[in-house]
Amino acid sequence: MVHIFLLALCLFFSSSVPSHGSVQDFCVADYLAPEGPAGYSCKKPANVTVADFVYSLAKSGNTTNIINAAVTPAFAAQLPGVNGLGISIARLDLAPSGVIPLHTHPGGSEILVVIQGKISAGFISSSANTVYLKTLKKGDIMVFPQGLLHFQVNAGGTKAIAFVSFSSPSPGLQILDFALFANDFPSMLVEKTTFLDDAQVKKLKGVLGGTG
Amino acid sequence: MVHIFLLALCLFFSSSVPSHGSVQDFCVADYLAPEGPAGYSCKKPANVTVADFVYSLAKSGNTTNIINAAVTPAFAAQLPGVNGLGISIARLDLAPSGVIPLHTHPGGSEILVVIQGKISAGFISSSANTVYLKTLKKGDIMVFPQGLLHFQVNAGGTKAIAFVSFSSPSPGLQILDFALFANDFPSMLVEKTTFLDDAQVKKLKGVLGGTG
Amino acid sequence: MVHIFLLALCLFFSSSVPSHGSVQDFCVADYLAPEGPAGYSCKKPANVTVADFVYSLAKSGNTTNIINAAVTPAFAAQLPGVNGLGISIARLDLAPSGVIPLHTHPGGSEILVVIQGKISAGFISSSANTVYLKTLKKGDIMVFPQGLLHFQVNAGGTKAIAFVSFSSPSPGLQILDFALFANDFPSMLVEKTTFLDDAQVKKLKGVLGGTG
Amino acid sequence: MVHIFLLALCLFFSSSVPSHGSVQDFCVADYLAPEGPAGYSCKKPANVTVADFVYSLAKSGNTTNIINAAVTPAFAAQLPGVNGLGISIARLDLAPSGVIPLHTHPGGSEILVVIQGKISAGFISSSANTVYLKTLKKGDIMVFPQGLLHFQVNAGGTKAIAFVSFSSPSPGLQILDFALFANDFPSMLVEKTTFLDDAQVKKLKGVLGGTG
Amino acid sequence: MVHIFLLALCLFFSSSVPSHGSVQDFCVADYLAPEGPAGYSCKKPANVTVADFVYSLAKSGNTTNIINAAVTPAFAAQLPGVNGLGISIARLDLAPSGVIPLHTHPGGSEILVVIQGKISAGFISSSANTVYLKTLKKGDIMVFPQGLLHFQVNAGGTKAIAFVSFSSPSPGLQILDFALFANDFPSMLVEKTTFLDDAQVKKLKGVLGGTG
Amino acid sequence: MVHIFLLALCLFFSSSVPSHGSVQDFCVADYLAPEGPAGYSCKKPANVTVADFVYSLAKSGNTTNIINAAVTPAFAAQLPGVNGLGISIARLDLAPSGVIPLHTHPGGSEILVVIQGKISAGFISSSANTVYLKTLKKGDIMVFPQGLLHFQVNAGGTKAIAFVSFSSPSPGLQILDFALFANDFPSMLVEKTTFLDDAQVKKLKGVLGGTG
Repeated sequence: MVHIFLLALCLFFSSSVPSHGSVQDFCVADYLAPEGPAGYSCKKPANVTVADFVYSLAKSGNTTNIINAAVTPAFAAQLPGVNGLGISIARLDLAPSGVIPLHTHPGGSEILVVIQGKISAGFISSSANTVYLKTLKKGDIMVFPQGLLHFQVNAGGTKAIAFVSFSSPSPGLQILDFALFANDFPSMLVEKTTFLDDAQVKKLKGVLGGTG
Repeated sequence: MVHIFLLALCLFFSSSVPSHGSVQDFCVADYLAPEGPAGYSCKKPANVTVADFVYSLAKSGNTTNIINAAVTPAFAAQLPGVNGLGISIARLDLAPSGVIPLHTHPGGSEILVVIQGKISAGFISSSANTVYLKTLKKGDIMVFPQGLLHFQVNAGGTKAIAFVSFSSPSPGLQILDFALFANDFPSMLVEKTTFLDDAQVKKLKGVLGGTG
Repeated sequence: MVHIFLLALCLFFSSSVPSHGSVQDFCVADYLAPEGPAGYSCKKPANVTVADFVYSLAKSGNTTNIINAAVTPAFAAQLPGVNGLGISIARLDLAPSGVIPLHTHPGGSEILVVIQGKISAGFISSSANTVYLKTLKKGDIMVFPQGLLHFQVNAGGTKAIAFVSFSSPSPGLQILDFALFANDFPSMLVEKTTFLDDAQVKKLKGVLGGTG
Repeated sequence: MVHIFLLALCLFFSSSVPSHGSVQDFCVADYLAPEGPAGYSCKKPANVTVADFVYSLAKSGNTTNIINAAVTPAFAAQLPGVNGLGISIARLDLAPSGVIPLHTHPGGSEILVVIQGKISAGFISSSANTVYLKTLKKGDIMVFPQGLLHFQVNAGGTKAIAFVSFSSPSPGLQILDFALFANDFPSMLVEKTTFLDDAQVKKLKGVLGGTG
Repeated sequence: MVHIFLLALCLFFSSSVPSHGSVQDFCVADYLAPEGPAGYSCKKPANVTVADFVYSLAKSGNTTNIINAAVTPAFAAQLPGVNGLGISIARLDLAPSGVIPLHTHPGGSEILVVIQGKISAGFISSSANTVYLKTLKKGDIMVFPQGLLHFQVNAGGTKAIAFVSFSSPSPGLQILDFALFANDFPSMLVEKTTFLDDAQVKKLKGVLGGTG
Repeated sequence: MVHIFLLALCLFFSSSVPSHGSVQDFCVADYLAPEGPAGYSCKKPANVTVADFVYSLAKSGNTTNIINAAVTPAFAAQLPGVNGLGISIARLDLAPSGVIPLHTHPGGSEILVVIQGKISAGFISSSANTVYLKTLKKGDIMVFPQGLLHFQVNAGGTKAIAFVSFSSPSPGLQILDFALFANDFPSMLVEKTTFLDDAQVKKLKGVLGGTG
């Protein structure tokens, strides 16, 4: 009976031409092959191991910086197993005065869960221009819809940790201050399109290393 | 023969139970019925007319305002025929010193075509933080990927007009200054999450009517 | 100047017909209106508050049961703010001998992060029939592609906690043992389609309350 | 032990607020509630029965008509269980001289399998304008990509039967001759936009009952 | 006039830069180029022939095996023309006592049509855990929503044949018994996550060739 | 402070493994790498310039042809920046008697805005077979749902210009007359599947260069 059944394994899923090894249960990123609008190319299934689906966010990001905070992503660019699967995750560390400045994720919605400490968070809706604010404690979760400006700040006297998940393997991260003050966006255009004062723009460009 | 063929019209698309009037070629918005994640509910096909698919953007928006510019949308909320179809359009009018301030469309990518005058436009990528700038003249088009900060300013001495199309019937519009300074976003939080000075925040809140 | 600018607020986003209050930044679930293939109908924006986007997963689920484990979901059915956003989350609690039995999420991929304790987890690919296994400790994450059989078991001597995020607001949960043994699936058909012995099927039906 | 386990059934999938009966495994069409861009509203799960997922295409469509053929659809409008699932099916009957005239499905791709007889089928690509033709016999299948003009004609001396599946629950059906000659499309516009002769247009309008 | 019109063919679809041969009507699989999350890479349009869209499912799969049944797929891995089109098909053959054991398709919904004989089929919903069962005869169709456990068994005394279509070109196939008993899934973990007895697991592992 | 902040730029977005340069804000077409179902492969971000997002549709297409009209596309095949973004655009030029003949876009919905002159346009719905007609003047817009037959004709005595946007970077263009009369579609099959007279088919094949 065993013999017949093993034969069954071969014959059961029969095909009159050879099958071409589709890996569409998942598409583990092959960083050396071309990337397309839907994500990275897939590794050959035979080369996929469990390590492609596992990652460690155990260590705190380094918060010895001016925002006293860190984001450690496990997006498709770091964790090949999420490629094509519509999900990714990151770790937030906020020292007592830590701030994740106003930012957007152009490519995905976010859900945050507080693991330690207290976090005040908020987002602003687009046309209605409503501000949604909440102070969250351990075990609280909060949703941030795709593409809307939002922030997180430490709201307790102690270090805060959160995990944030995204509805995309590559949600992107556009930090407002970096977009305005940390590249070569000409100051005159920044001022014209934000109504910020020249002194303010130049001061923050100085801090963040922007030119122009 | 006519008789038989007319009969054919009835019998050709045969069905053993009555068909339930699906309108899935299109789903013209019924503003009185519930809205869902994919858009408005559909009007009954029998009530749809060509007027549901037609709109006029012939008139200039009123640019007698502090930005000397106007956006006139034909999104699903104004033009019921685009509901569910993944497309919409708007008209931009920029007086000689007009500015469409930095903003994002959380829900769609944009393509702009200049109809009259000259427009300088730009967008900033997210993680790479690169600024892409171009001065466009009549007949030029430019692409703005979904969710990224971008702007348009009049770059000639005369009125400029453009049409902007979107990859969504409801792309949304989040204007940075309005999100920061034209609602009840507490100044302390604005400052903490943008590094702007208190005086700057309060000045612009004063101008734009923000509180808190 | 203020006066002109406030006027600008009204005129800037001009429209020749009244706009019909689209809420497409987000679509907070209205549980009393019809549900469609894309999710629940949306609450009127004016009725949306920050509470619609916030939830608490602070409390452990009750693990005093035969699997010594609990799943506490924050899906669209519990957390209205995730409706339509392609994301949701749940909390897993595993007592020292706790087991989340083999199951699938027909509607979404999953990413797990261990918050406390140790968890052994695994999934099985479809056509290639490969088993991917890993023992995870605090801070480790693991990906489970959509629709594939997977499990989590406590791998330490102490309580384990994890958060699991999904690429859908309603990923579903099909627990293998419940599908086979906890409903009225006729034993004869269970046996015929699983090759399990009659005694085995009847034993587990007895335990899980299945009939037929 | 049974007692504890039945308790487990209740406690296992725990939630601190009542769950709101999501039916997102499937969304069986409720023809009396509003339809949206993603399909019909869903019936309450408690009202769903197996009959919602089953249909009969056992009977031949009536081919006593001028095309000697019939299409019997099981789309979302006939079969409520496919609503939202991205699939549907129809039966084709072609009498010995039967023809399914040139048509498109605006909303889905098609796969055809011949059950009886012989069928010649073809489609035309868009920009490259290539004609792909094949005569199919029993057991042969053929793919017709979304939105492209295609046809099927009986290629044997005996009745032919096929099943055609679609990548949408509501693929639509636009028959070229009906679009041109069986409605009130003004003859002058038909001629101007097709270059057909006036006599040809009027002849076929006569046959198909068109006006204008 | 011909001359002018042929010229028109060239000039009509004008472009100021050369067009780069997009093949987006369809994307016939090139099995030698990289695969991505959306499917295989596309063959150059010039190399596509009608054979890429045609396949034969005329021959019965070999049912001389322990399940007395066979599945013969025409998925993207076998039929290059369905790549990217959201549809595929397979043939089921069930000898008089044939069984397609409990399985899921992680990547697509299914619609079945009985061509010959009688088939009893069923699926189980996820959270509600409801069993939907039906005995189908020739011409009957049945829908199986994505990712849910389902089965088909011969319900007559004669051979049964069915065609099953899927809402994906690569729906996947996870057969429960193969996932549990035909690979190296450690018996201890199988038992722990299914509550099956050790003897039962080892017996079926023996039959199906599983190890561990 | 600057020093610390520049350090922050490096440390803020921390990662324990190198990131693999994802470009998912956008995916500018690399015409030399493989194309997939979701579009062209992406250029390396470092090679992307603003020129990839800009195009000129300033020049009229050549309307010295039998239709007295021209379509100038800026699809993904011409404008690499729209690849993967769900949007594209084209320019229509219609001399006084110009006609864009009946056609479909299999891959996208369309929105048209008249820039100069007058245009009569229309489309035909599928199952309901309704004709929607409108004469449009400067500034008017009209929607054409995906895959439905539609046309545009000059309705004034002067040249007309319009821009048409699409909900896809590669919407395709199937012109009815070209599909029927400008390739090797055998006349006998054209006649059989359209009911056009042999003389009519041969006349238009002669004009449009068709064979067979």
